[in-house]
Amino acid sequence: MPQQRRAQLTRRAILAAAAEEFDTTGYDGTTLNAVLRRSGITKGAFYFHFPSKEAVAEELVAHYRQRLAGLRHRWSTPGDDALSVATGLTAELAAELERDVMTRAGMWLAHRRPEEVDAWRRSLAELLTSAVHGRLLRADADPAATARVVHAALLGACAMSVEGLADHVAEIWRVVLAGAKPARM
Amino acid sequence: MPQQRRAQLTRRAILAAAAEEFDTTGYDGTTLNAVLRRSGITKGAFYFHFPSKEAVAEELVAHYRQRLAGLRHRWSTPGDDALSVATGLTAELAAELERDVMTRAGMWLAHRRPEEVDAWRRSLAELLTSAVHGRLLRADADPAATARVVHAALLGACAMSVEGLADHVAEIWRVVLAGAKPARM
Repeated sequence: MPQQRRAQLTRRAILAAAAEEFDTTGYDGTTLNAVLRRSGITKGAFYFHFPSKEAVAEELVAHYRQRLAGLRHRWSTPGDDALSVATGLTAELAAELERDVMTRAGMWLAHRRPEEVDAWRRSLAELLTSAVHGRLLRADADPAATARVVHAALLGACAMSVEGLADHVAEIWRVVLAGAKPARM
Repeated sequence: MPQQRRAQLTRRAILAAAAEEFDTTGYDGTTLNAVLRRSGITKGAFYFHFPSKEAVAEELVAHYRQRLAGLRHRWSTPGDDALSVATGLTAELAAELERDVMTRAGMWLAHRRPEEVDAWRRSLAELLTSAVHGRLLRADADPAATARVVHAALLGACAMSVEGLADHVAEIWRVVLAGAKPARM
């Protein structure tokens, strides 16, 4: 195996093992030794790739941020209505959180960082504002508040159970949008 | 100090220290030694009161359960409408979660236990069902789904920031009830 490829695999194995540990034990409770044990990687190899546990966490947050940006990009097909984008994007995020421990660990690391939380909420609020402009939501709907509640409920649902998260997210939108959609003709 | 009183204080100190540790490091990441260090209590004294870390967690969950039952009892004054009870009770719970680490730790320990989660949701759904019967909510409102979303959003908001939780909970109700309240005359 070429050396560069092997280095990439090692780096990836460290990130995956750390994500598993953070996901079950929490970031503060995770020791470097636990990550080494789970990944089967030596301390020397670890320090070749990362200076510290904090640096691994940084990269998992970056991974989560990239996944969000990727979803946002893929769901920005011209012609799609903003409300379908908001609900579709969060449904896909929920499905990814169900199956990908790295994205999940990244989300939990990000959720205590005000700038990450704000970016997520703002992105969702922008979509909901577009939906108000497009008359998909009532003029008196509150995009910023709605985005905060959807975000909090997604996080809380994920904390309770990763399984069935996509269904839970569909229910969140159903409840939250019940009053925000214009009355049927 | 009478011996019984001293024993009570020791027991309380163990619970408070464990709650602080669980709250910052998570249950899985908390060692018995960390609890002993924080409480300044010897291992012998600890084992006089509790057989294990698990037993301390059990008691914190019981504390949380009792606080919920206490709130539910105090908010059951005849004449109060069910919707005011639901919103008032959760606002008071949020205020308590902001200031009391034992209740907070109890909630986080309880949130992975389906029977505790179900009891909480059911209690809230019952109030919302009464509100539907009392025409405070629309006949087509979904009390069970609404209760699940409010509960998840409360948990998620608490995970992000304990500070300002009561305001966050008021916003959750405002968003969630926007579509559930009957149209104004």
